Amino acid sequence: MSKLKVLSFGLGPIGTSIAKLALTRKEQLEIIGAVDANPAFEGKDLSELTGNASPTGVKVTKSAGDLYDKADVVLHATSSFLSVAEPQLMAFCETGVDVVSTNEELAYPWFTHKDSASRLDEAARKNGVTLLGTGVNPGFVLDALAITLSGVCASVSEVRATRILDATKRRLPFQKKVGIGLSTKEFEENVRTGKFGHIGLPESIAMVCDSLGSPVEKIDQDISAKIAESTVKTEHFGSVDKGKVIGLVQDGRGYSKGRMVARYHIEMYAGAESPKDEIELVGNPTIKLQIPSGTPGDIATAAIIVNSIPRVVEATPGLKTVKDLRPASSIML
Amino acid sequence: MSKLKVLSFGLGPIGTSIAKLALTRKEQLEIIGAVDANPAFEGKDLSELTGNASPTGVKVTKSAGDLYDKADVVLHATSSFLSVAEPQLMAFCETGVDVVSTNEELAYPWFTHKDSASRLDEAARKNGVTLLGTGVNPGFVLDALAITLSGVCASVSEVRATRILDATKRRLPFQKKVGIGLSTKEFEENVRTGKFGHIGLPESIAMVCDSLGSPVEKIDQDISAKIAESTVKTEHFGSVDKGKVIGLVQDGRGYSKGRMVARYHIEMYAGAESPKDEIELVGNPTIKLQIPSGTPGDIATAAIIVNSIPRVVEATPGLKTVKDLRPASSIML
Repeated sequence: MSKLKVLSFGLGPIGTSIAKLALTRKEQLEIIGAVDANPAFEGKDLSELTGNASPTGVKVTKSAGDLYDKADVVLHATSSFLSVAEPQLMAFCETGVDVVSTNEELAYPWFTHKDSASRLDEAARKNGVTLLGTGVNPGFVLDALAITLSGVCASVSEVRATRILDATKRRLPFQKKVGIGLSTKEFEENVRTGKFGHIGLPESIAMVCDSLGSPVEKIDQDISAKIAESTVKTEHFGSVDKGKVIGLVQDGRGYSKGRMVARYHIEMYAGAESPKDEIELVGNPTIKLQIPSGTPGDIATAAIIVNSIPRVVEATPGLKTVKDLRPASSIML
Repeated sequence: MSKLKVLSFGLGPIGTSIAKLALTRKEQLEIIGAVDANPAFEGKDLSELTGNASPTGVKVTKSAGDLYDKADVVLHATSSFLSVAEPQLMAFCETGVDVVSTNEELAYPWFTHKDSASRLDEAARKNGVTLLGTGVNPGFVLDALAITLSGVCASVSEVRATRILDATKRRLPFQKKVGIGLSTKEFEENVRTGKFGHIGLPESIAMVCDSLGSPVEKIDQDISAKIAESTVKTEHFGSVDKGKVIGLVQDGRGYSKGRMVARYHIEMYAGAESPKDEIELVGNPTIKLQIPSGTPGDIATAAIIVNSIPRVVEATPGLKTVKDLRPASSIML
């Protein structure tokens, strides 16, 4: 089997760890290009970003140029928002290259961004391209895992999901995203932008409910600040005083056929003591699944993106979501 | 969408609970026949076996006759062994009907029954038929779930799986299968037949290792008796005295590239105090998943068989295993 030619597009912390992992899959993958809009990266060897000891021979460029024509798959990691990603994804479609993306809203845009989903699906089909948005959350722990678990249920009446994670274990942009160090006033201003907090919760809920044959009619969510009860020491924000924000609590509820069928609860804050992921399906039988210390965020995200490459390559064209594909799996070393 | 026409083949306790669940999926499924070799069932309305209050109109027959031609899918639940099931599966292939089977050895016969797997795959492809063996174990908890979990690992070095269940919560044939009430001598004689204990452990191990790109070279397993330390009361076997068998402990190990890569441990006995299912993937990162009180056996088996029907109908022809298909999912009620 010849190696798949991969283009790394977006070299922030997550894009870089994706590229770093892809570099280890020497038998399956060949990175043929690395693209980032940041002028500070231009011309650098990819190894300078990934921390690899020896040069990769891949120079970072500001645009993909004719690399699209040579690539089999783009690993896309630029933004959580479809409004930013859609033009990039359209360009990938037009050049006929498959995409695995970290974009949270792409994980299941069929409820929250229906028009965008339809446009992307049409462009992908027309050009014989497969698009997939995935990750740990959305893409795995609060959706794919819940759908998979439902396989052993005769029926489900409600999906409950809980994710508690220690934000200090995650990359800096993530820590900023959850509001560490903000005042409650700043936090609330951020929430009002609608671009703050964990992106992808409605996407997970919509995906699970569609999979169970009960499309949601409405999803609501609210985001509140987790406040330091005593001084919390952090690596990036110094000491966060009592009364300041150390993270967030986010609740989402999905409604179908006039009743609440999904209840999601996320806590992401500095120093969370009992991190865990948990899915409970209320039904026949009621069944609970736990990942006791939680899914380790950033490396797990890089892993599921790279592990999804063969799934996207083998899939039929179109905008796919993880519910449409057999599960991404790892390799044994 | 027109309903799928389903034939129930094998009406033991599991086959009957599958049929009973299929009867509830009125919008998706229509049972057009029910077949069992037991002459005591012949001519009975299916409702007499499933316990449904009103007649189904489906009479149990001893052979399928021309029902094959009318069915879209056979729900096959006759035996744990491929030596028994293969002629039946071949007959299904020849008549062009898809199959979801509880047969444990069919869940992944590519290592343990390679010749049989090749014959069935060839017959299925030739006739445009999809064959799938699935269930809770093998088919879900110790294989599909492990493969799915690996998606968030950059690499895996060892797969560890533990399943502990209280055998008294299961159907009578299952309780017999684990040896409740036997003397240790009888237990050991049973083990020597090679047809005793949990069937499907090597199949789960082989499936997981193949999925992770490290096919096993060797699998060994041993089965030992779990002995009553004091009198254990059971529904079907009365009081089991101290010193008698209350169940079994089964260990399986898979080897690839000269080292042990999978270590499976199962305990199935009367009165097990802490039932659980657990997968631990040692790797980068090491990650653990638990179903704290275990996957509820018999209803879960019926569920995953019925939930797999759409997956088999949409799949390309051939002998498939759960690793080849997107996960079976339930419906919301």
